[in-house]
Amino acid sequence: MTLAPFVLDPQLASDTVAVSQLPLCEVRLMNDKRYAWLVLVPQRAGMVEISDLPDAEQAVLWQELNRVSAALRSVAPCDKLNCGALGNIVRQLHLHVVARREGDPAWPGPVWGHSPAQPYAGHALATRCAALLDALDRGRPQTVDDR
Amino acid sequence: MTLAPFVLDPQLASDTVAVSQLPLCEVRLMNDKRYAWLVLVPQRAGMVEISDLPDAEQAVLWQELNRVSAALRSVAPCDKLNCGALGNIVRQLHLHVVARREGDPAWPGPVWGHSPAQPYAGHALATRCAALLDALDRGRPQTVDDR
Repeated sequence: MTLAPFVLDPQLASDTVAVSQLPLCEVRLMNDKRYAWLVLVPQRAGMVEISDLPDAEQAVLWQELNRVSAALRSVAPCDKLNCGALGNIVRQLHLHVVARREGDPAWPGPVWGHSPAQPYAGHALATRCAALLDALDRGRPQTVDDR
Repeated sequence: MTLAPFVLDPQLASDTVAVSQLPLCEVRLMNDKRYAWLVLVPQRAGMVEISDLPDAEQAVLWQELNRVSAALRSVAPCDKLNCGALGNIVRQLHLHVVARREGDPAWPGPVWGHSPAQPYAGHALATRCAALLDALDRGRPQTVDDR
């Protein structure tokens, strides 16, 4: 059997920038300066619902969600994380993790569909990506070599 | 150590009705006839974020999400499931699973915060709960005694 290659959905590609590649998911940052907002995209072709992933890969997805959530919180302290897998517009399986603050533009409603993104300006996007990459790296599971 | 007893948040209690009790979560139906919409509430006191649950209970949560998702789809065929853990208003950890149809009132936006619920009328709530309970029971993990 030949597996179809994974190709990132063009809408996700245009709304977000790549931050890091974990074993299962690419971690991408939503280009919206109003929210610290990450998107995990399992690098598997043809997935739409979480349950489309084999059980073993679902387990990896949840480990990676924990790791990404901790990294996001360390970079962007927040009052509440919002996690969601919607996919009404972009069907390719992807998981949002958003650091919400009381009083942010969409608070207390969801960010999805609230209002058009406001892209980062200047070096702010690169700075945030670097901070996230560093936090993700600090949170990587230890191997024997690390000890 | 004495564990605090779990008490369901009063807002969740008033918005939803109990359908079933799984090993970790109570499964509740949102009383909004416009959507087939379930809420999983881990029966653990003091939990706010998914990562507050111990790893072993997170694993149970995801198993129960799969089981509930399958039951929901069998009762309410849909175009897309929407799963979300928000908690901006009700902080007690809970996970939404909503069967979305193209053209439903909030489509393609999220259901959260869209508009006030429209309660089920007559026997419709009981009928839906019974169908969900039956579907959840068909999807329960097999034990040796079941074979």
